[in-house]
Amino acid sequence: MRVNGRHFETIWINNQHPAVVQIIDQRLLPFAFQTEDICTVTEMYTAIRDMHLRGAPLIGAAGAFGMYLAMVNAAGDKPEKQYITDMAGYLKSARPTAVNLAWAVDKLAHDLRNTSSREAAVETARRGALAITAIERENCLKIGQHGVRLIEALSQKKKGDTVHILTHCNAGWLACIDYGTATAPIYLAHDQGIKVHVWVDETRPRNQGARLTAWELSQHGVPCTVIADNTGGHLMQQGRVDMVIVGSDRASPYGDICNKIGTYLKALAARDNNIPFYAALPSSTFDWNLSEGAVETPIEERNGDEVRFIEGLYEGRTCSVDIVAPGVPVANYAFDITPARLVTGIITERGIVNADKKSIFTLFPENLNPVNE
Amino acid sequence: MRVNGRHFETIWINNQHPAVVQIIDQRLLPFAFQTEDICTVTEMYTAIRDMHLRGAPLIGAAGAFGMYLAMVNAAGDKPEKQYITDMAGYLKSARPTAVNLAWAVDKLAHDLRNTSSREAAVETARRGALAITAIERENCLKIGQHGVRLIEALSQKKKGDTVHILTHCNAGWLACIDYGTATAPIYLAHDQGIKVHVWVDETRPRNQGARLTAWELSQHGVPCTVIADNTGGHLMQQGRVDMVIVGSDRASPYGDICNKIGTYLKALAARDNNIPFYAALPSSTFDWNLSEGAVETPIEERNGDEVRFIEGLYEGRTCSVDIVAPGVPVANYAFDITPARLVTGIITERGIVNADKKSIFTLFPENLNPVNE
Repeated sequence: MRVNGRHFETIWINNQHPAVVQIIDQRLLPFAFQTEDICTVTEMYTAIRDMHLRGAPLIGAAGAFGMYLAMVNAAGDKPEKQYITDMAGYLKSARPTAVNLAWAVDKLAHDLRNTSSREAAVETARRGALAITAIERENCLKIGQHGVRLIEALSQKKKGDTVHILTHCNAGWLACIDYGTATAPIYLAHDQGIKVHVWVDETRPRNQGARLTAWELSQHGVPCTVIADNTGGHLMQQGRVDMVIVGSDRASPYGDICNKIGTYLKALAARDNNIPFYAALPSSTFDWNLSEGAVETPIEERNGDEVRFIEGLYEGRTCSVDIVAPGVPVANYAFDITPARLVTGIITERGIVNADKKSIFTLFPENLNPVNE
Repeated sequence: MRVNGRHFETIWINNQHPAVVQIIDQRLLPFAFQTEDICTVTEMYTAIRDMHLRGAPLIGAAGAFGMYLAMVNAAGDKPEKQYITDMAGYLKSARPTAVNLAWAVDKLAHDLRNTSSREAAVETARRGALAITAIERENCLKIGQHGVRLIEALSQKKKGDTVHILTHCNAGWLACIDYGTATAPIYLAHDQGIKVHVWVDETRPRNQGARLTAWELSQHGVPCTVIADNTGGHLMQQGRVDMVIVGSDRASPYGDICNKIGTYLKALAARDNNIPFYAALPSSTFDWNLSEGAVETPIEERNGDEVRFIEGLYEGRTCSVDIVAPGVPVANYAFDITPARLVTGIITERGIVNADKKSIFTLFPENLNPVNE
């Protein structure tokens, strides 16, 4: 998508210097746009661990590029098997619970064990990392192509009037390689000339909406407005929201959606006001062994300081201010589960599917197994 | 209620210096507790306009004490009728939409027109202002006495285990004279030794929950935890909320509740999880002429800077930081309406009533009139 009028993805190999991987340092957004040169596996480890980049698909790709840098910088004629294993283990430990990271790093490690020279290993890793980014990019594009039909239909129903879409958190291109998941249908609609406007939940406590989603949408020229998370229900009551699209961190094969805390409240309001509520996700987000209600999903409880302190711009520099009454405890749950009954449909790379087990396994039959059958 | 172990109300006449009214400067809370001496009607006007104090009942009382100061500082033997009218108009203009302010100031102005000397006027104003605070205090206490029975019942049902109550915004004693509305049943339960714990919504954008409610509850010793507004639905799904109590800015005789933006989302989640949802309000909050759904209620759209900037403590002083992507528009709606169908009951000074017209007019029959009949 566009930044200052130029096309960017979230991670790439430097054109002139193939030993340098570049990323956007997302910690500085939206107050500064800065790319970062990553030259060693240690620098990639740090970038992943300290969240210079975030978002499941992007973390996976970053892990793959980390393996590429490990090969570029390997000593000797041919990388030792032990070195490959060590580097993979090191990279995976940067975000130990990130499924995409482990999957991508293990895939490259597996392919690299059969290479016969350093040059071959570098080329295998380069192709492997580019293949992973290509798949992620393609999945998001397909999600966009399926999802844009929903926006087209709403636009027609409104005789070309602006379609107002509410989203929560950042399931945008910054979390992926390009397009994003929840944002992909929106970008495609905008690029096709359909009038869209996005209500962006600021998404407390980490404010990914106000910081990232609002930034990336407006950089690409998509009209959007930031609102406090409390506001969506009122806007829906007033008929000012035509649809809701969110991303997902994990989905059950029954259609339950685990996503950023607060998503469930918006799904309830959408249902109460007969507004369609969609989750957009690549099928890799499904946890095929989850039970109905996604009840096994562990809900991460994070440090209360993420609620107590908020980062913003003050006199030209970012600083963190304390916004909670001193001495009062704070609780910080990161996700909630929106039950399938509140989900109008799920937008995947294979098409849009109803949020029920039968429909989902009809679209993804290869994932039926003795556990979830 | 208690502050640093001492009992405080929100406004009072100084014991030693009857020409001085004192208030708590709420702008500094929770980072500093400071009382302010108000000696002139101009100082009271500023305190009301610039929100040194806020909350409908407290603003009304402040207006009455403003008239008292006007009499204390009046020139001549006896305050002129024109002077009384001018002072009343001046005070009312500090917050022109505050119904309680106009009511209290007009009541004192009416009583003062018949006084024969400056001394008599001062005494009339003093008694009038104290009577208004006494009524407000008494109404909150009665709300507490009725509401505490709900908490007692939950405590018994849980065999003495902690009762978890979620509240939104500040409907606490800081908004009233003492006890508060939503908080009155909680303070009374706590003082009776019932184990209670309050989930305090931080209440973006102005964070009255994180700043004021959390502060006043913890000063009085009531256990509480601040959460992002997004969190309540998840906690309810997990069975960690036993009831919701909120205040109200305006209620319809059909039982619809206009309150701080985001209240509606919590009411939806409470209903979805079979959790009782109560509004606590003095009957003066009813707008007896509102239609079903409170549809005539104007929803104030406030300056977007209240969303864009947030005030907190940084290196020992308060400062405002910008937390939204530069150049992106922001919308700021202050209230929403929770429809009566989501309200379990309304806690008033006369008792707890179902959220329907028949029940409400049975409790307040004197308000039936040709418009709402």
